[in-house]
Amino acid sequence: MRRYIALITILVVVLTSCSAQTNKIKHYFSEASNNDEDFTSKVFDVLNNDKESECTIEFKTGIYNFYPEKAYEKYVKISNNDNGLRKFIFALEGRKNITINGNGATFIFHGSVIPFLVENSTNIKIENINIEYDFPFDLEGVVVANNQKEKTFDLKINKENKYKIKDDILYFSGYDWEIGMGENIVYNAITKSPEYFTSKYEHNFNKHFLKATDLGNNIVRFSNLDAAKVPPVGSIYSDKGPHGKNRNIVGFRVYKSKNLVLNNINVYHSGAMALIAEKTETISLNKFNVILKEGSTRVISATADATHFINCKGKISMDDCRFENMLDDATNVHGTYMICDEVIDASTVALKFGHFQQQGFDFAEKGDTLRFIDRTNLLPVGIGVVKSIDMINENYYKIAFEDKIPDFTKKNIAIENITWMPSLEVKNCSVKQNRARSLLISTSKPVLIENNYFASMMAGIRICGDANYWFESGPVSNVTIRGNTFENLGVGGHSPQAILQIDPIIGKEYRKDGYYHKNIVFENNKIRTFDPLVIYALSVDGLIIRNNTIIQTKKYPQIFNDLSPFDLQNCTNIKIEGNTYKGDNEASISLINCQKLEIDSKQEGFLENTIKNPNKYFYQN
Amino acid sequence: MRRYIALITILVVVLTSCSAQTNKIKHYFSEASNNDEDFTSKVFDVLNNDKESECTIEFKTGIYNFYPEKAYEKYVKISNNDNGLRKFIFALEGRKNITINGNGATFIFHGSVIPFLVENSTNIKIENINIEYDFPFDLEGVVVANNQKEKTFDLKINKENKYKIKDDILYFSGYDWEIGMGENIVYNAITKSPEYFTSKYEHNFNKHFLKATDLGNNIVRFSNLDAAKVPPVGSIYSDKGPHGKNRNIVGFRVYKSKNLVLNNINVYHSGAMALIAEKTETISLNKFNVILKEGSTRVISATADATHFINCKGKISMDDCRFENMLDDATNVHGTYMICDEVIDASTVALKFGHFQQQGFDFAEKGDTLRFIDRTNLLPVGIGVVKSIDMINENYYKIAFEDKIPDFTKKNIAIENITWMPSLEVKNCSVKQNRARSLLISTSKPVLIENNYFASMMAGIRICGDANYWFESGPVSNVTIRGNTFENLGVGGHSPQAILQIDPIIGKEYRKDGYYHKNIVFENNKIRTFDPLVIYALSVDGLIIRNNTIIQTKKYPQIFNDLSPFDLQNCTNIKIEGNTYKGDNEASISLINCQKLEIDSKQEGFLENTIKNPNKYFYQN
Repeated sequence: MRRYIALITILVVVLTSCSAQTNKIKHYFSEASNNDEDFTSKVFDVLNNDKESECTIEFKTGIYNFYPEKAYEKYVKISNNDNGLRKFIFALEGRKNITINGNGATFIFHGSVIPFLVENSTNIKIENINIEYDFPFDLEGVVVANNQKEKTFDLKINKENKYKIKDDILYFSGYDWEIGMGENIVYNAITKSPEYFTSKYEHNFNKHFLKATDLGNNIVRFSNLDAAKVPPVGSIYSDKGPHGKNRNIVGFRVYKSKNLVLNNINVYHSGAMALIAEKTETISLNKFNVILKEGSTRVISATADATHFINCKGKISMDDCRFENMLDDATNVHGTYMICDEVIDASTVALKFGHFQQQGFDFAEKGDTLRFIDRTNLLPVGIGVVKSIDMINENYYKIAFEDKIPDFTKKNIAIENITWMPSLEVKNCSVKQNRARSLLISTSKPVLIENNYFASMMAGIRICGDANYWFESGPVSNVTIRGNTFENLGVGGHSPQAILQIDPIIGKEYRKDGYYHKNIVFENNKIRTFDPLVIYALSVDGLIIRNNTIIQTKKYPQIFNDLSPFDLQNCTNIKIEGNTYKGDNEASISLINCQKLEIDSKQEGFLENTIKNPNKYFYQN
Repeated sequence: MRRYIALITILVVVLTSCSAQTNKIKHYFSEASNNDEDFTSKVFDVLNNDKESECTIEFKTGIYNFYPEKAYEKYVKISNNDNGLRKFIFALEGRKNITINGNGATFIFHGSVIPFLVENSTNIKIENINIEYDFPFDLEGVVVANNQKEKTFDLKINKENKYKIKDDILYFSGYDWEIGMGENIVYNAITKSPEYFTSKYEHNFNKHFLKATDLGNNIVRFSNLDAAKVPPVGSIYSDKGPHGKNRNIVGFRVYKSKNLVLNNINVYHSGAMALIAEKTETISLNKFNVILKEGSTRVISATADATHFINCKGKISMDDCRFENMLDDATNVHGTYMICDEVIDASTVALKFGHFQQQGFDFAEKGDTLRFIDRTNLLPVGIGVVKSIDMINENYYKIAFEDKIPDFTKKNIAIENITWMPSLEVKNCSVKQNRARSLLISTSKPVLIENNYFASMMAGIRICGDANYWFESGPVSNVTIRGNTFENLGVGGHSPQAILQIDPIIGKEYRKDGYYHKNIVFENNKIRTFDPLVIYALSVDGLIIRNNTIIQTKKYPQIFNDLSPFDLQNCTNIKIEGNTYKGDNEASISLINCQKLEIDSKQEGFLENTIKNPNKYFYQN
């Protein structure tokens, strides 16, 4: 008995005071006795009682609820999501050596709250946590009837969604939010993957609202559909609200930090990206899973990317992670191109963003090296070191450089920050059942993608770069993709999707000017695919494709059947060898404007000679 | 010639450098040679080249344009308006001794930009400026046809409004913004005042959207009207968008400053309040006019209050100002009640706001004295001095007091800040053609309202105070209203509106507990009114009504004809003498639960005896 009293005394003491006298204070949370109890203030107080402390917060396994009323709040600019006033539960700002260990606890977040904020913090470890929400940030339902002629379908709305209909428009809602319908996708209820050729069912909400009529019993009839086909009976229709308004509640907001470790975390849902890290050095994800909860009848986990890294540095590593059922990529590692709006004087420029969801991004700071590129051919025209930067508004920055900048007054210039580029290692991960790509890679530092499983709806690994649409920089210079399995990607039907898709956006007339990417190795991968296209590569200097096994499947009817498995354009220093193709016909290799070729003409299942058969889908103009 | 060269040299020098060596640097702006030139950066640069400088910025008479692209931006919480990320053209933060003199120049603002920001600044003078916008923030049009049976009306939309119709909903827009329809009012095109009994035409947009059909030639047919009557042909229908989204672009944002002078300024339009000042000490308005531009075909100037002062101190004075055609009050001078959400310990409480548009208000700081009141009877239950305040989110503050607070754990408590209350003087001003009241007064410091002309749609001078609806504090203790003219107010028909309306919101059963307001003198005023009610007073200790002349007009049919001109309830220390009533019948004085009366029974046009005829409209429960 005495032992227990002593233990309780210690617990009470560590919960109410937090001193920095010892290296690491421990705070313990036992499971709430009342399941509805709000732990928001308790967590806030522990973290704020002593902002200098280095501590571990341990939760006993169990369920903890967090509500918005007492949550810490501030205005944040979160690139590639939507900026705004946001509430946060675990808010780490300017902290170091903090560990938050859930010991397998489940955190249920209610309403518009972002679970984790990590800003200007160092050595932060968060682990052993399950993240759930009271109400999902997307609407889901089963199509129980449809009428192709009338262009209507009846949806049995999931019980997890609250909704109302006003003036023929359906609004779905949660604890403290409500949103109209917008971006949508049709999923297959059995495979929990996007329906084959799901693009046919996509409603163009920019043109018309879906008109909603309540039929009772949680069934709503939608008419006014602007899509090629009505969704099939039995499929799942999901809607996350209008673009520009549906990326508010990320799972982890990470900004200007260093050494972040996320271990053994299940993000079952988020109302934007599950993890978005900006300007952060070295991030390690181990068993960081963005997945549906076992037994859930839902089909969407994160309503945007599982992970996303913008102008980070150091090393980003992912090991043994599962990324499933997101409405966007598993990861996207890139920098940002800003547009040069005005040359103010010989060493000063004014910049703006090319995409509205980049506005407010912390583009550069004093001492950073920036690279100027020509927006037409994406090639460098100079560099400069930042002397000062002034964000006058979220879309108008002035940068003064240490030295005179090149005279590019007559050129259309974009600028990227090459001080902030990370290396990347993705190992033993799997990506499936998500809309969009598996990985998007745009970093000049070394990249290793090894022993993963990819089965996303769009491309497997996309290496793009553009200064005219997404404005995501920059070129790669050292990418190795080996020992991975790719299975039946590209089922969405939106446009051809390659297993490895290297497609910087360069106008046809400028492709002769040079090469954007370099040194990409794709080897020892296993590809099972129903559509023929495997690799599309544009503007690469140094591309090795070797010892890959490609097996044609009959899983789905082909969608883009007129493409060569390997389609290379404006590339140089190419080596293709040891690949195997198993399919109905021999595979072709298409080359346009390519040089310095080493192509093994005896590859199993391949035609002996290369062909010239331009891929009409990829940016021909 | 040499003189000119010298002059130009001087001009260039003062425009490009701003040093604090002399007491006041002068910056000159000559009129733009190209009328479309954007002066935003020029103004920004002059103010930011040396943030320590004390300077005068002079404009040559002419037209100057300001655009949003290069405007300074930040997230602001503006009480009684809508919080958000806003752009500002003249941004004064932490400045002192600055004069901005337009010399009669016209500033045309394009899009979502707030003309003036004055924060943490002292001795600021802004004068001789006309403020216009490219596109109005409300939609206006003439009703060219209507159909009472079908509940439709056809509106010829003003040429100044851009609009589109999508899915039967009309959206109007400006340079960089777009909004759907919402709060609306019908104006008379000839008088440019709200239509008589305009409440009949008010569309309840919360229930239904107005369905819009384009008939061509800028004429739109609206159906689905949820109002008692369709707007009359020839009237002006105005709509400013939905509540909670239509108070973004104030004219002047003034915050935590001292000694502000605004002279000879015409605010022809603003997309929220024309002037909103919070926590500011001493403000002087002279010829600060919120009016329509001469010759304009429009009916709305500011889309909310002309001026509004929250928890200011020192003296607010207005002289020779015109406030016309606003969609809300000419002024509202008040404090803020926060609700006690939780008693955390003997000296700490958690607070929240009662009205969503107060959220984020800078309620108190260390050293301020706060008064606790009982929300049922509005009476004080104690005071406390702030030791610290922590805004955890915009609707959850924690305040620690220097001493123990009274035990009010069982009471429903609100808290007001009595350190920040201003005195007020309004002289020689006129208010007309606006929706809502002329003046709203809630301050305990001396108030003098003298020699003004009031002809607003609702009450003339309202002295309210409540801790359950608007949450605007506090009681008055010294108000003199004399020598003013009031003319045919209360035409809107929403509810009875008194010339002097003292109506703190206190439940009937709690009115016996005490008196909320005190010491109000209403004397030597001239009232011309078509409806009988002149003064309604509840819960006043010390009310003098003397030597006023009331003339019944036939301008409109009576709306609330069953009320006594003087209707006093739960008041004490009352003196009524020397008043004159000229009308069809003798005027009555109604008294309920009133004490300590001195009533002259020989007042001209009044019944000899008082009556007891409860006003059923004012908060009887």
